Amino acid sequence: MDDRRRGNINMFIDRLIESIKEKNNPTVVGLDPNLESIPAHIRENAFRRHGRSLKAAGEAILEFNRKIIDAVCDIAPVVKPQLAYYEMYGIEGMKAFMETVRYAKSKGLLVIADGKRNDIGSTAEAYSHAYLGRTSLCDGYFEDVFGVDALTVNPMLGYDGIRPFLDDCRDFGKGIFILVKTSNKSSGQVQDIVTNLDASIYEILANHVNEWGKGLEGKYGYSAVGAVVGATYPNQAKKIRSIMRNAYILVPGFGAQGGTAKDVVHSFGSDGRGALVNASRSIIYAYRSEEWRKHNGEESFDTAAREAAIKMRDEINKAIKQNREVV
Amino acid sequence: MDDRRRGNINMFIDRLIESIKEKNNPTVVGLDPNLESIPAHIRENAFRRHGRSLKAAGEAILEFNRKIIDAVCDIAPVVKPQLAYYEMYGIEGMKAFMETVRYAKSKGLLVIADGKRNDIGSTAEAYSHAYLGRTSLCDGYFEDVFGVDALTVNPMLGYDGIRPFLDDCRDFGKGIFILVKTSNKSSGQVQDIVTNLDASIYEILANHVNEWGKGLEGKYGYSAVGAVVGATYPNQAKKIRSIMRNAYILVPGFGAQGGTAKDVVHSFGSDGRGALVNASRSIIYAYRSEEWRKHNGEESFDTAAREAAIKMRDEINKAIKQNREVV
Repeated sequence: MDDRRRGNINMFIDRLIESIKEKNNPTVVGLDPNLESIPAHIRENAFRRHGRSLKAAGEAILEFNRKIIDAVCDIAPVVKPQLAYYEMYGIEGMKAFMETVRYAKSKGLLVIADGKRNDIGSTAEAYSHAYLGRTSLCDGYFEDVFGVDALTVNPMLGYDGIRPFLDDCRDFGKGIFILVKTSNKSSGQVQDIVTNLDASIYEILANHVNEWGKGLEGKYGYSAVGAVVGATYPNQAKKIRSIMRNAYILVPGFGAQGGTAKDVVHSFGSDGRGALVNASRSIIYAYRSEEWRKHNGEESFDTAAREAAIKMRDEINKAIKQNREVV
Repeated sequence: MDDRRRGNINMFIDRLIESIKEKNNPTVVGLDPNLESIPAHIRENAFRRHGRSLKAAGEAILEFNRKIIDAVCDIAPVVKPQLAYYEMYGIEGMKAFMETVRYAKSKGLLVIADGKRNDIGSTAEAYSHAYLGRTSLCDGYFEDVFGVDALTVNPMLGYDGIRPFLDDCRDFGKGIFILVKTSNKSSGQVQDIVTNLDASIYEILANHVNEWGKGLEGKYGYSAVGAVVGATYPNQAKKIRSIMRNAYILVPGFGAQGGTAKDVVHSFGSDGRGALVNASRSIIYAYRSEEWRKHNGEESFDTAAREAAIKMRDEINKAIKQNREVV
């Protein structure tokens, strides 16, 4: 392990905090493209070039993503491609994912891959190589296979399955966000179960996030180990925030899933930091809203996304400010 | 949904049971290839053709997998590629995964993709399209994107995140295996937690597996919804088996992880059916054992894998038989 990178690595969590500050924007644009929802002209052009094929799908979603990235890269600090939407288009989709990551990074954006990966230790190590670390090619390494800055991770297998990601966070300056309380309706079926010690599963997980992040704090006190806590559960978010003082919270569920700016403020700390709110469909498909279509065509989908991203930024900043004044 | 396939589909679970019976073998060969562990001649040949690259890695693991598949396809009913080991090599790794799936199916094997995928409903749907169902290309579908027979799934998000997979199981004759009690050392950190109703999380999950599988039973009474229960936890396996009468259990952790034939019998029902035991490293890397290397070279790695697979089959069949005689 002597040859692993160490030392003065610019940690993801520090780069994240600095980018949020610089852009005055604690939000993430979720890149969850699907062929049905992207503008017809992009889709049809791709079909003309490659027929009705996965190759056409891959090219179309990549073109869509690039235009979205161009439209938001000066105002948003982070994009979050959701891996399922790329795997759905097979190898061609995964190529589009890889090119999206590269393009976003070239535009100064941080990239969180939303993959919710999980497995036993030896296998979690392989996932970590793929997304955060590097893959051995025997007598040499391939750096940055998918090369994202951070990955979402599912903790159901316990510490063994998390440890390899922690190693790569430390050695390569990366980050993870561990599922603690997800935004979906049935998340309580497992995560809200109350144990015989009176704590709920999500509280136990929040404590693990704390524990696992120890020693991985950056210069602002936040650790490389963050948590996923849905905007749709503000009461649980309050509890979780009070347990995890050093963990950044990635907040899905804003917008299309029903979470509002008032709901997400509970995930921020009293310093106005500590959370990162994601919206996907309500940003990237803003051009499909009735409002937009009244006055504009689908060609300006990127402008619609930019305006929606600005609106979200302003709403959330305002809610954070109001909340701090109340406190 | 009218155009979704329905009706007389040959269900995965029925094909599985028939193949196990025909080959008299309730085991799975796990295809978890990594460049360091495969025979040097395969690796070096690929490096000669493509340099020290991910392309070389992808070709090498595909060649390795094909030879393993050739060696076991007449005796084993199922192979289980572990997705992490392919994602680790990026796009080239995913190509190798796809070609491995195709090759295995062409040789009459069933394929379980071990991906432990999970997400909220709308996103779980995209994963399900990728592995079990089909992906819409607007006015048409792409069938069998990765086209496996079954997928492992993580239940931490509850029913919302499982439902899309159930739909594809029903409509396309596929199967899922839901994590209930994983084989790793720290699996108890979440899965063994005892709730205020005195049940453990793994027992609650076993009950969900039962519930979610209702209406998806095949002609032998087993449902399309199976469970993952590690060979390393025989006591928990007994309890889980008694809860889930209609669910097939995929048992990892045999061999390299320490599970023995005696440990796995508890996952089988009194009919001698109901479980499927996986071994990966102890089969595919059998050529690396001291025993094998004393008398053979690495060129015969496929013969080593075949012999190890036969030994495993016989050990497990013997243990099942002994257990039934005792009962």
